[in-house]
Amino acid sequence: MKELYFMENIKPLYTDKMLEAKRRADNLVKPVGSLGKLEDMAIRLAGITGALNNYVDKKAIVIMCSDNGVCEEGVASAPQIVTATQTINFLKGITGVGVLARHNSCDLKVVDIGIKEDITHKSLINCKIRKGTSNIAKGEAMTREEAVKAIKIGFDLVYKLKKEGYKLIGTGEMGIGNTTSSSSVLMSLTGCSIDKAVGRGAGLTDEGMKKKFLVINQILEVNKPKAEDPIEVLHKVGGFDIAGLVGVYLGAASCRLPVVIDGFISAIAALLAYRIEPLSKEFMFPSHISLEKGYSLIMEQLGLEPILDLGMRLGEGSGCPIAFNIIEAATRVMNEMATFEEGNVDLENYKGLWENKS
Amino acid sequence: MKELYFMENIKPLYTDKMLEAKRRADNLVKPVGSLGKLEDMAIRLAGITGALNNYVDKKAIVIMCSDNGVCEEGVASAPQIVTATQTINFLKGITGVGVLARHNSCDLKVVDIGIKEDITHKSLINCKIRKGTSNIAKGEAMTREEAVKAIKIGFDLVYKLKKEGYKLIGTGEMGIGNTTSSSSVLMSLTGCSIDKAVGRGAGLTDEGMKKKFLVINQILEVNKPKAEDPIEVLHKVGGFDIAGLVGVYLGAASCRLPVVIDGFISAIAALLAYRIEPLSKEFMFPSHISLEKGYSLIMEQLGLEPILDLGMRLGEGSGCPIAFNIIEAATRVMNEMATFEEGNVDLENYKGLWENKS
Repeated sequence: MKELYFMENIKPLYTDKMLEAKRRADNLVKPVGSLGKLEDMAIRLAGITGALNNYVDKKAIVIMCSDNGVCEEGVASAPQIVTATQTINFLKGITGVGVLARHNSCDLKVVDIGIKEDITHKSLINCKIRKGTSNIAKGEAMTREEAVKAIKIGFDLVYKLKKEGYKLIGTGEMGIGNTTSSSSVLMSLTGCSIDKAVGRGAGLTDEGMKKKFLVINQILEVNKPKAEDPIEVLHKVGGFDIAGLVGVYLGAASCRLPVVIDGFISAIAALLAYRIEPLSKEFMFPSHISLEKGYSLIMEQLGLEPILDLGMRLGEGSGCPIAFNIIEAATRVMNEMATFEEGNVDLENYKGLWENKS
Repeated sequence: MKELYFMENIKPLYTDKMLEAKRRADNLVKPVGSLGKLEDMAIRLAGITGALNNYVDKKAIVIMCSDNGVCEEGVASAPQIVTATQTINFLKGITGVGVLARHNSCDLKVVDIGIKEDITHKSLINCKIRKGTSNIAKGEAMTREEAVKAIKIGFDLVYKLKKEGYKLIGTGEMGIGNTTSSSSVLMSLTGCSIDKAVGRGAGLTDEGMKKKFLVINQILEVNKPKAEDPIEVLHKVGGFDIAGLVGVYLGAASCRLPVVIDGFISAIAALLAYRIEPLSKEFMFPSHISLEKGYSLIMEQLGLEPILDLGMRLGEGSGCPIAFNIIEAATRVMNEMATFEEGNVDLENYKGLWENKS
């Protein structure tokens, strides 16, 4: 896509390295395939990095924070100020994602990409485009140029993180009202019915849900984004947080870093990135099944399967730290398990017997 | 059960502490319930230990290793010597569970509870009852007294681990042929049809599967264990490994330690423990959905839901380290997340809005 001038060509996975990794996995002292998705992950990591042995010791979650003009329609259960409050709480490390990130030793990179309030904090990455998107119930969220700018912010940040030695990237977001923009993007991209795309967000009442349905119908009526132009969908009915995360996915694929999908909003950004550049999908690892409606439809569209079922629906990037631990587990299996020979299990006599997969 | 003379009364969960924990979870700075099973785990841990804040910093996986006489019927895809070989490999830390345990900082407690070969190793816990069970296709696996003895071994070991400061216990096993004994136990306990209980183990061929079906039918025909007597089922068609793990579950419940279920064999031991003492279930946390047939039926019987779907079917306790990481995550959420007040999210104005659950 020409207007994403900063994007280099994303190259496919290194299939030769994946074959080599598969051969090694099959030769580890266990029934073939019995470590399931851990093996699949280790093999895909080899395809991403080009190395058989990977070490994901330095990990970061990028949290894109921004406000949504559509809040003035009353679509969110929490007041808009919570975007700023929680952003500050991320920086303090006292929210869900902060605690879980500390638990699994990963850093948070908190980005102000469009918060309504002004926050000053030494650890905040200030890339504010403007103070929240416009109200998408009345017109486009942002200009096409602003969408591209937001994508570039995420893209450049991942390159910077790669330079700093990060090996694994997670995606998070904060933005009151962003399930409304995400559902609007999902309906625009897939043409699915409203009941498949819209959930209760942080906790809407039945009455609140009725209103959200009406507002989303209005959003699509007013903006009429074309499904075949994902950047149009993004700038018309998306948000700065989503756009920034699209950049994170495209950047990760460009500089060949594995990237973890968190919940619903993070997943809709992944779907946009995939529609912009299908190869970007090869670098994505979904973490958990989000309870927010629409999540599973996105996974179907991406053809990806989450590994965790924790009944979570918090967002923030909170699903990433646990997924990081599992991806790291996959690398350690590959790096540290013995082969049949090293484990004194005679290849000739035994391995053959173990090779009949179920 | 009188013959389990060493068992103290297992007490129910401390419901008052669980209510207190639920109140705290609901007051953490997030939509109510949005951390899903992490919250449920933290609440159940409070019910187990009686403390609101728990620290599962010291963790161990107990691996019960033993041989099965039924191997002479040709029901396993790997030769019997692999039980001993892999036990040695556990001690060397080079198998799947060894690598994953190192990754998530937990210790392995490798127990010889009935291996055919004699293994000498400083870290091996030698509790050998005898050199493998008898062939259950021809008669009972062990005497009723041997079953009780094996249960006591697991039971006492957990008490010892508790004394040593362990806070979380995992279950693992190694015993070529033990999917045959496990399937026989499952059919005996539930009366389910053979096709719901029998899988390919480490990787049987179609021909091997036909044979396994015939042998299991013979096992049940010869032994006719009564479903209402779980210890009879265990001693007639079980194994030393399974019996030892039954003791681990009962011991964990008795001394109030949380215990993680691994795969199919570990789960059948959990079901036996539950049939012996229903309250033992309250202390169990299933880890991953094992691909081995019969696993899901056991979870239905227990009314428990695993949290991981990793397509694993290795056994050894390999699902435990990742589950440990998640349980530890749950404790940290409870211990370290801010409340609404601490997070400057005004209770009066905001929390009410967040309390409408989806």
